[in-house]
Amino acid sequence: MRTAEHTADGEDPPWGEVTPEAARKLLVAAVEAFAERGYHATTTRDIAGRAGMSPAALYIHFKTKEELLHRISRIGHERALALLTAAADGEGTAAERLAEAVRCFVRWHAGRHDTARIVQYELDALGAEHRAEIVELRRGSGAAVRRILLDGVRDGEFDVPDVPGTTLAVLSLCIDVARWFNAAGPRTPDEVGALYADLVLRMVSAR
Amino acid sequence: MRTAEHTADGEDPPWGEVTPEAARKLLVAAVEAFAERGYHATTTRDIAGRAGMSPAALYIHFKTKEELLHRISRIGHERALALLTAAADGEGTAAERLAEAVRCFVRWHAGRHDTARIVQYELDALGAEHRAEIVELRRGSGAAVRRILLDGVRDGEFDVPDVPGTTLAVLSLCIDVARWFNAAGPRTPDEVGALYADLVLRMVSAR
Repeated sequence: MRTAEHTADGEDPPWGEVTPEAARKLLVAAVEAFAERGYHATTTRDIAGRAGMSPAALYIHFKTKEELLHRISRIGHERALALLTAAADGEGTAAERLAEAVRCFVRWHAGRHDTARIVQYELDALGAEHRAEIVELRRGSGAAVRRILLDGVRDGEFDVPDVPGTTLAVLSLCIDVARWFNAAGPRTPDEVGALYADLVLRMVSAR
Repeated sequence: MRTAEHTADGEDPPWGEVTPEAARKLLVAAVEAFAERGYHATTTRDIAGRAGMSPAALYIHFKTKEELLHRISRIGHERALALLTAAADGEGTAAERLAEAVRCFVRWHAGRHDTARIVQYELDALGAEHRAEIVELRRGSGAAVRRILLDGVRDGEFDVPDVPGTTLAVLSLCIDVARWFNAAGPRTPDEVGALYADLVLRMVSAR
């Protein structure tokens, strides 16, 4: 039931930042395998096979399955943080920046739903050090959204009684798009982004 | 990193509706195993072992791992549907009923987060017939929330330009609580329920 990942967030090709090409292919294969069967049920042999390589060839690039997961998770989280930080640092009112943050974050979770599910659901499978690094990136994403909310409250644009709770809810709403989004469904990533930007502006009672 | 499930939705003990006791124990063991390692990486032998039974004893109650997943999923979805239908059929204004639906649905996803994750994330692992049955229960849950929104729009209580999209977003926001909720965290299931009821009333611009 899975579908190939889109590049709705403007990245083309997916994982284009990963070199050499063999390492990129292995990451693409790992995303597919983890999405299909889950992280724990996937072996490095499965991943190598999908990428048309031998287990020994995989080992040149990634020593363990956890190392593959970590690389996927780090790239995914760095991308999410970059999108949210760009929106928070952008031009315009707090409402405009919040709408932009939601649109970008939703588009990423819809267009890259297989990657997003792994990134969001397999945190517990990371080793302690890698997990701490990812938690730090997640803190940064939360801080970017919180900053926009605080700007809006300060300027009298928003009415938000619980800024930490509302920050959590905004991120959560966008993240869950990765669970239900279906590329064959009735809404495009852009349409979901527009709907959600409106709903989030309502959540903060934007003026 | 998993924690024992609460009974914040008033069910006590969890899976109390399942008889005989051996079948109930097996379901509890399956929920724990699936939550820890994922559905695909778990064997019926693992589940039997956790429940202190032999594989042969498991086989008396459940012929396959998929049958266990189906039972967990059906009970979880029936419970969610019952909560949402009770809220939709309840007394009060549309705003009061919507707030009650959100509070109950959030409490269930927070208090029973391990079960909820399995119920929500492992749909693809169900066989075609079982999957169709679960999809029907999910339609019912969507219909209950949509009905409240339509009542509110009709009575001039709510302003909702996109009722199907907003229904989806309300359910999605509540469901994702199962992903991030941490029983050791700063908010109780009731507190998250209250916060989310307020945010959802804002999403529909309740009068």
